[in-house]
Amino acid sequence: MGEFELIRRYFAAAPCAQAAEGVALGIGDDCALLQPGPGQQLAVSTDTLVAGVHFPDSCDPSLLGQRALAVAASDLAAMGAAPLAFTLAMTLPQADPAWLEAFARGLSQMAEACGLALVGGDTTRGPLCLTLTVFGQVPTGQALTRRGARPGDLLCVGGSLGDGSGALPLVLGQQVAQGEAAEYLLARYWAPQPQLALGQWLRGKASAALDISDGLLADCGHIAAASGLALRIEQDRLPLAPALRALAGSGALDCALSGGDDYRLAFTLPPELLPALLAQWPEAVVIGQAKAGQGVQLIDGQGRHIEPPRAGYQHFGSSGD
Amino acid sequence: MGEFELIRRYFAAAPCAQAAEGVALGIGDDCALLQPGPGQQLAVSTDTLVAGVHFPDSCDPSLLGQRALAVAASDLAAMGAAPLAFTLAMTLPQADPAWLEAFARGLSQMAEACGLALVGGDTTRGPLCLTLTVFGQVPTGQALTRRGARPGDLLCVGGSLGDGSGALPLVLGQQVAQGEAAEYLLARYWAPQPQLALGQWLRGKASAALDISDGLLADCGHIAAASGLALRIEQDRLPLAPALRALAGSGALDCALSGGDDYRLAFTLPPELLPALLAQWPEAVVIGQAKAGQGVQLIDGQGRHIEPPRAGYQHFGSSGD
Repeated sequence: MGEFELIRRYFAAAPCAQAAEGVALGIGDDCALLQPGPGQQLAVSTDTLVAGVHFPDSCDPSLLGQRALAVAASDLAAMGAAPLAFTLAMTLPQADPAWLEAFARGLSQMAEACGLALVGGDTTRGPLCLTLTVFGQVPTGQALTRRGARPGDLLCVGGSLGDGSGALPLVLGQQVAQGEAAEYLLARYWAPQPQLALGQWLRGKASAALDISDGLLADCGHIAAASGLALRIEQDRLPLAPALRALAGSGALDCALSGGDDYRLAFTLPPELLPALLAQWPEAVVIGQAKAGQGVQLIDGQGRHIEPPRAGYQHFGSSGD
Repeated sequence: MGEFELIRRYFAAAPCAQAAEGVALGIGDDCALLQPGPGQQLAVSTDTLVAGVHFPDSCDPSLLGQRALAVAASDLAAMGAAPLAFTLAMTLPQADPAWLEAFARGLSQMAEACGLALVGGDTTRGPLCLTLTVFGQVPTGQALTRRGARPGDLLCVGGSLGDGSGALPLVLGQQVAQGEAAEYLLARYWAPQPQLALGQWLRGKASAALDISDGLLADCGHIAAASGLALRIEQDRLPLAPALRALAGSGALDCALSGGDDYRLAFTLPPELLPALLAQWPEAVVIGQAKAGQGVQLIDGQGRHIEPPRAGYQHFGSSGD
């Protein structure tokens, strides 16, 4: 038996690969079999992370396992899907038992936090690269898409913005910091918690939704384009965590607008549903409104238009090419 | 817009990404939405192909597109699943328009032949690597697994064996040949046709099934282990294509036993169903029988046990590490 066959058996025995609701057949046959509930559609999303492009080659494998699954699961949250399962395609230069043990540990932690079961995948030799495909279920017709926003809807986000990109100088070793603020940002980078419960709560309420991976401005541009309207963002309303302000200083706003890697939901909501939202999700914040028109407009506290910072910030993120 | 965003739009406009039955939402949102029919389970399988490991770096991208999807779709055939959709995660060193156009053409050809719609994926920069995840549906409880074979069942294969590995010396440029035999073997390597219709016909008939990717002996070992019995293979019954005999000579038998990359179905069938099988699938061949015991036994025309050739043949195949 080759070392890669051993890896396959190792993952098949991992805690996250055990029996789970909605999984009729897991690892070990030609296919896994998923059993969505009656009247449910299956939501599917795929994300690839490449060493040296989306994460540093030498990063902690346990953190990498957490992050890889969190990034993928965030797309389920964005559709309002209930998590079911995932597959892991892993290309590795060699089989290093310590690396694998740590990676599987981080992966299993995030899988348990998200309620996702590992049902299959592939293990191959080559330059380090991970492709995760996640599966969730959502009642037919209730998935949150990007195209339903209406003028007058409020533009909301599920929590603080910019933490992930604010952590990057720490991740890359360009900035050295310790203490609570650094720990907070690093945790937000390596283990962002997909807003799965919020996404499911928003079914039938939000008119459009997505998760912020490319950066607030770019992602709001996706909603604006798909819905055929404009989104006006009030810069002063952006929720910036104290840790981000402390470590990124005057760059905090740029992190929130363009940094990406937030994995918070951004969504549009009819104004009459705002009290219900804030009662259930006090960390959610209104940052603007949908209007007739097109594109994303940024305004200051006096309602004046601001030229947005240039996007396309180079980073180790899920959206990096 | 970056070159990789252009690639994403390019694939979103490809023929294989258009509307299809069972696909409620395709490329362009956070997730795709699949809608299996009532009473259906969703079959899922993931395969990764790495340049320099599973295919030569310089291979024809159109052929690579065909092969990558065929290899993945063969797992749906092995479960008796009806094809629905697939995702493509593609890591590329650069965006080369001619390469991409040819790859997408080959991919779309195989997608049309298989009845699979492209519903999502990811495009990232890095060493060339492809991960495809395929989706099919199968009525609940009717999927073909590896574990139901019973003593007395016939062991059958869906057609000629060894063609894929017999083609390898041609693929790798170690052997130069032209004419019909070479063309046949190269077509079998680059565009194996997943036996999707045969797999669906076998629902409720075959007691166990898989597709031969690792080689006949290794894969029959999987059925034997999962079903808790022995499989006896009669070497003289192995279907060897004339083209394979012509080009591989005395190595043809080893190709059939251990070469891998066949993507034919191997399955066990109660003997009373053999006439129905051969009436519908004349290219199917009985090659042995299931017995009490364990492991795979190889016998010659006189019923004498033969020592199987060593497996683990190094090759560019989907099963290579």
